[in-house]
Amino acid sequence: MPEVNTPLGGLLDGPPRVVTAGVELFETTLAAQGVEVVPVDWRPPVDGLAEEVARIVADPRTEEANRTALERITAAEPRWVGITTAREAVGIETGQFLHAGPPITWERASGPLRGALIGAMLYEGMAETPEEAERLGASGTLELAPCHSQAAVGPMAGVVSPSMPMFAVENGAFGNTAYCTLNEGLGKVLRYGAYAPEVIERLRWMQEVLGPAMDAAVRQVDSLDLRAMIVQAIQMGDELHNRNRAASALFVREVVPPLLEAGIDPSDLADVVRFINGNEHFFLNLGMPAAKSSLDPARDLPGCSVIVAMARNGTDFGIQVSGTGDRWFTAPASVPDGLYLGDYGYDDANPDIGDSTIMETGGIGGFVMAAAPAIVRFVGGQAADALDATREMYGITLGEHPHFQIPILEFRGSPVGIDVTRVVRTGTVPAVNTGIAGKVAGTGQVGAGLVTPPMEVFTQAVRALAASAESGR
Amino acid sequence: MPEVNTPLGGLLDGPPRVVTAGVELFETTLAAQGVEVVPVDWRPPVDGLAEEVARIVADPRTEEANRTALERITAAEPRWVGITTAREAVGIETGQFLHAGPPITWERASGPLRGALIGAMLYEGMAETPEEAERLGASGTLELAPCHSQAAVGPMAGVVSPSMPMFAVENGAFGNTAYCTLNEGLGKVLRYGAYAPEVIERLRWMQEVLGPAMDAAVRQVDSLDLRAMIVQAIQMGDELHNRNRAASALFVREVVPPLLEAGIDPSDLADVVRFINGNEHFFLNLGMPAAKSSLDPARDLPGCSVIVAMARNGTDFGIQVSGTGDRWFTAPASVPDGLYLGDYGYDDANPDIGDSTIMETGGIGGFVMAAAPAIVRFVGGQAADALDATREMYGITLGEHPHFQIPILEFRGSPVGIDVTRVVRTGTVPAVNTGIAGKVAGTGQVGAGLVTPPMEVFTQAVRALAASAESGR
Repeated sequence: MPEVNTPLGGLLDGPPRVVTAGVELFETTLAAQGVEVVPVDWRPPVDGLAEEVARIVADPRTEEANRTALERITAAEPRWVGITTAREAVGIETGQFLHAGPPITWERASGPLRGALIGAMLYEGMAETPEEAERLGASGTLELAPCHSQAAVGPMAGVVSPSMPMFAVENGAFGNTAYCTLNEGLGKVLRYGAYAPEVIERLRWMQEVLGPAMDAAVRQVDSLDLRAMIVQAIQMGDELHNRNRAASALFVREVVPPLLEAGIDPSDLADVVRFINGNEHFFLNLGMPAAKSSLDPARDLPGCSVIVAMARNGTDFGIQVSGTGDRWFTAPASVPDGLYLGDYGYDDANPDIGDSTIMETGGIGGFVMAAAPAIVRFVGGQAADALDATREMYGITLGEHPHFQIPILEFRGSPVGIDVTRVVRTGTVPAVNTGIAGKVAGTGQVGAGLVTPPMEVFTQAVRALAASAESGR
Repeated sequence: MPEVNTPLGGLLDGPPRVVTAGVELFETTLAAQGVEVVPVDWRPPVDGLAEEVARIVADPRTEEANRTALERITAAEPRWVGITTAREAVGIETGQFLHAGPPITWERASGPLRGALIGAMLYEGMAETPEEAERLGASGTLELAPCHSQAAVGPMAGVVSPSMPMFAVENGAFGNTAYCTLNEGLGKVLRYGAYAPEVIERLRWMQEVLGPAMDAAVRQVDSLDLRAMIVQAIQMGDELHNRNRAASALFVREVVPPLLEAGIDPSDLADVVRFINGNEHFFLNLGMPAAKSSLDPARDLPGCSVIVAMARNGTDFGIQVSGTGDRWFTAPASVPDGLYLGDYGYDDANPDIGDSTIMETGGIGGFVMAAAPAIVRFVGGQAADALDATREMYGITLGEHPHFQIPILEFRGSPVGIDVTRVVRTGTVPAVNTGIAGKVAGTGQVGAGLVTPPMEVFTQAVRALAASAESGR
């Protein structure tokens, strides 16, 4: 029989292959008759959005735009190229601050975000006391903007003020740069809303000693390949959001030799090495701008349904989608479900906060939990849950990352390129694991766990994308 | 019904519990009738050794001795305490050499062992040229002894000469110390039988610069906890025999701060850091004496069937068992089955060589491959094989290590305490993964893979242990 070049050509040439969805009985009955069955995990789209999803899928631009987005995200070559100040990097002046998550005002800001802003005002010399800073905040004169609006990302409160040193991470494949402050370590730190004198003193040391030393080190070697470190760290049990132990150790290995050769004052050198060394999350603030710089080239593609940012400000959870530009889709952030430190418990926890969900957006973090089963001792659950989390994410993503391979899944690439229509169609939200901030300003970290993003942000995005969809034919 | 204090008391009080072995039909039939079934993986003992095995099991000393051995091995607290010279550490003088594996003569020595001995003679100034050294070797005047006879271990050829610096690793729980030379890095190195001028020059630099620097560093902190590093590295994808990436990175993190504070000449310091940093196997030479120091307290327990050493000299594979003292049971070593570097192949490979099987003996290496699925890219096979290798080892070991936990197996402890009677009863030999040396002296490493220890060494040991067994009652 000759091949027929119609969409139905060949349908009846061979034995039937059946795709089953829903009721399992269909699948098992067919399989018992020797029919090849391909079960798919299909559920009706949530919230009656079948029409919107159909309109996006029928948009003639979508398939190509999504392919382009996936190609750009996975072709990224993030490299650490230097240290710069926030003033230079993201163009902010005294009185202007960046913060994590979607836009927010002082009035709606949660405890940790207000605490971090108070600390940043003290650090910048805008106020002498926390009370004075708080009055200034409440006066409505501070200018606040999301980190994401300035090619930056910030963990937890994510507050950036003009004098802070920032990592500059360049995406070698596309030439764009992303920025992030340096990690302060654990305990009482600004990003968890603490603003005690020791916090401000540490920020000044970071500005005066750590930042210049790190910059001198990277200048010795021109740049450091962050993708290579992420690739290795995933094979060493990190998921690079809550577990950065391997990546931080690999970073120490890379940075110590150039630090030794950079002509730094010996006593500063010992302090710098001890500081970096003493912090297993030091790499997080490099991993985040690495992911941000990888995702930014996938922005603003008309018709594209790929999520390019997920971020929380401690009050709202927000996402941005390539095809809808800089628009944020937001809903109330929930409190993560996890394990608490010491005597802390659920009642001490702030709702979800931070730009660190950029890791999951880039196919890392919760999406590679299968590679990091030890993380369950930190966020709760069983090792099997870590495997399941990754496996489930293949259902809402466009592809597999060619470099971020997961050994235990026989080196399958990590699920990457979250398609907002697949989230809505399957009812599966992105798997996110995160640190938990205390809700009272100045408390610090109270735990770590898994968070369930609100489905509403995805349905809003689908409605907006559908409204801008072009007609299929 | 009152409890009856006889061995059969209670047997008929409750529903039957049946242990099944062999034909699966028994198990499934009983299970179908609701009977609780405990299937065990039982095969008839290999080689007609049922009587010998029975005699060992009936020895009234064995159960208690095995329990003691397991307790001692798992209670070990190996710490790196200093650098010493081989002359001091293992009491050898010019003309005396230690080597890997069971005892051997120059005549029976393989290419890499002869090459390493030639290199050591050049390094010690016993000969001016390789030819002269070879004649000296062939003259039969060298005194050779196994590393294991002097509380030492050596990777690959494992040659130790008097001037070499050695790591001293103390088992804090028992006070005994084990020794190992420092890792030379990759490429042309003595342990793979290379003896070119660059090899000898590197050995001198290790003696004059690296050794003293490392000693000065550890003196700053008194000692470094190796068990803690091994515990962490297993959770970071190392199995610590062929994959030491995490452990080496963790070691760099620990050793660099005291190195900076040890008052070392700055240019030497940079060289030392670069050398340690540039070698992902640097930790192997600390992991090996850590395992050796953990196993030695389990030696010489009458009736004990636990293997306390497995080692190869490139010609023979040998084991030592606690209950039979220092006696070696040997058989010809086989060529590992694995992946080859560059253009090398099976025909270039030397039979199995090195004391590094001390890792498997201590419940690490091939026994924790499930924790290190990325290793299959280096030794061959699939990630699933790595899981299987570990699972199978539970069948020949006495217990699970309380500290060496494997996250992907829901934090189950590594299989530890190899019982030679279980090896013979089950026909399962220890899973070993190893580097592969070129068979021509001076070639270096040609690959890495899995090796099958010869069953004969285990049957010999069982015969010897049975011959010394005391009667049951």
